[in-house]
Amino acid sequence: MKIGITTGDINGVGYELILRTFETEGMTTLVTPVIYGSPKTATYHRKNLGCQTSFQVIESAEQAKHGVVSMVNCFDEEEQKIELGKATDEGGAAALVSLNRALEDLQSGKIEALVTAPLNNSTIKLANNEPFRGQTRYIEQAVGEGKKALKIFVSNNLRIALATDKMPVAEIASSITKELIAERLVILHNALKRDFFIDNPRIAVLALNPRGEGKEEQDIIQPVIDELFKRGVRCMGPYVAEDFFGTGNHEHFDATLAMYYDQGVSAFKALALDEGVNFTAGLPYLRTAPAMGVCYDQAGKDTVDELPFRQAIYMAIDAVRSRKNFDNERVNPLQKQYVAKRDDSDKLKLDQVTDDED
Amino acid sequence: MKIGITTGDINGVGYELILRTFETEGMTTLVTPVIYGSPKTATYHRKNLGCQTSFQVIESAEQAKHGVVSMVNCFDEEEQKIELGKATDEGGAAALVSLNRALEDLQSGKIEALVTAPLNNSTIKLANNEPFRGQTRYIEQAVGEGKKALKIFVSNNLRIALATDKMPVAEIASSITKELIAERLVILHNALKRDFFIDNPRIAVLALNPRGEGKEEQDIIQPVIDELFKRGVRCMGPYVAEDFFGTGNHEHFDATLAMYYDQGVSAFKALALDEGVNFTAGLPYLRTAPAMGVCYDQAGKDTVDELPFRQAIYMAIDAVRSRKNFDNERVNPLQKQYVAKRDDSDKLKLDQVTDDED
Repeated sequence: MKIGITTGDINGVGYELILRTFETEGMTTLVTPVIYGSPKTATYHRKNLGCQTSFQVIESAEQAKHGVVSMVNCFDEEEQKIELGKATDEGGAAALVSLNRALEDLQSGKIEALVTAPLNNSTIKLANNEPFRGQTRYIEQAVGEGKKALKIFVSNNLRIALATDKMPVAEIASSITKELIAERLVILHNALKRDFFIDNPRIAVLALNPRGEGKEEQDIIQPVIDELFKRGVRCMGPYVAEDFFGTGNHEHFDATLAMYYDQGVSAFKALALDEGVNFTAGLPYLRTAPAMGVCYDQAGKDTVDELPFRQAIYMAIDAVRSRKNFDNERVNPLQKQYVAKRDDSDKLKLDQVTDDED
Repeated sequence: MKIGITTGDINGVGYELILRTFETEGMTTLVTPVIYGSPKTATYHRKNLGCQTSFQVIESAEQAKHGVVSMVNCFDEEEQKIELGKATDEGGAAALVSLNRALEDLQSGKIEALVTAPLNNSTIKLANNEPFRGQTRYIEQAVGEGKKALKIFVSNNLRIALATDKMPVAEIASSITKELIAERLVILHNALKRDFFIDNPRIAVLALNPRGEGKEEQDIIQPVIDELFKRGVRCMGPYVAEDFFGTGNHEHFDATLAMYYDQGVSAFKALALDEGVNFTAGLPYLRTAPAMGVCYDQAGKDTVDELPFRQAIYMAIDAVRSRKNFDNERVNPLQKQYVAKRDDSDKLKLDQVTDDED
């Protein structure tokens, strides 16, 4: 299985994450990595780290062979100016070239999924002079084919999806609409089934407000939950965030939809620490990323843990397989009937009592 | 040391928490508990739990003896109607009687600190027909002498204070003002010194917005931090919440000021799980509470863990001692000079780089 890998910011920890991940014996038996980057820059990082990972330089993803770490040379021969730990235009430009090349191959089917290394949004200069609003949105626009992307943060069985992405707190409440919540829940439901191969997934929806009794809960979130539940999306709530995480309630659900970025991600990071993966659901193409930033303060110091990157690759592999299995089942009517008969009667008692705590 | 203890909602887990806490041998050597409740209701809960804790019924806190669990009988002889797990007016009325009686004794110095059991705000009917907005605010108004209360959630060395309390998300941003943040930071700084006996405490301030680059950070939070730092409050930030908790940065600070309830408490609960204490800072009188609600779903089932309640008592004891030591030091000029000479030169490098993660 060919998985494309971008190299992100050359001054951050992208190359380091990749090199350390493939230093482990056996990684290339699981996956055929196609790295989009600069061999010279990779060699610089490799020497700097004292890392053993060797790679083969290729000109196109088709040349990538099983059992080998391949790098598509995306740059001309001149050296890139590496300034470890610094936000530079060159770092941003290199990250964008890597990403664009990988997206081309993703769209043309040369790679089956994409794993992206971290980059720094503020260093990316787009041709149209618009600000770069994150890789997820960029990928959505580039290869989304009109579909909407949904961010799901994943660590083991903890999956937290975001109804709204990073935005000023002042704008959150007015962004929560029935259409948005319904759209997010449907994408989440479908992704859990198709990408995570969870049959009849159970979804928790968080309340927007701390008591869970505001007008957004009454007028927007609750009606959407009720409506979608009738339509077969097994979503429940809205749950007050602090009670939900405080009682470990997230363990009873296959995924949780948080209303805003900090609500979901702060709890996620506190629970998962450095182990998270950022999964992009809803798009025609699969993409994962380690739930971490460029880590300029750790660049070149060999202190960063590559585990989230490794997990991002594992999750991409799993998701490719899951989509194939899911789609294949629906091609074969006999299997489909069997699936439809499976017992979905498991029930869960979840009190929605809100306790006062002060 | 006499510590007052309210019994909270008679249909919740209040009595259970108290009875289980004092079932442990040796608790009464640490503290002389003065429980404000109904002996008959206590007996009901004791029998229901099969709990061994015995108590002596007294008419006034002055009669409480060391080594004995004493209960001030706050009710006439008729029995209270107990409906475990239900929100009833009688449950609310009993909780309010217990709280009022304890606050009287706190104010007159008969008890040195107060530990409150959980109650259900919606069951409390105030004489003036105003809604009951939580015990902290009620205590602030009853015995605060014009001072402002600050909620600090505490678990081991994790202390998270709240700039704003529970409120609709739509109102958070407009509630963040320079005056408010400065007031909260000064209360927190003073509480860390006087109630937690931390010399020259280091305080982290969270950003309001997910990127930490909004107008509230620029125009309000950062200027207040700079100004207060100059005035000797060692506060730093603003830190982006997810990075802060995700990297375990809270461990480098004596306390963290969160901008809104869910920002602080979701992360707190995820980190501390069932171990938290709600500490009321800023008031002339000390009060702690377990960071938990009435737990109607667990009432009478003997499934709730009394640990947070036990910790609330320990914390009240520690805070009483700390305040005494702190105030005594400042009475004795020689000791004061010594304290002033202590080495505060420890430095901390904390990059405020915000990574993009998507």
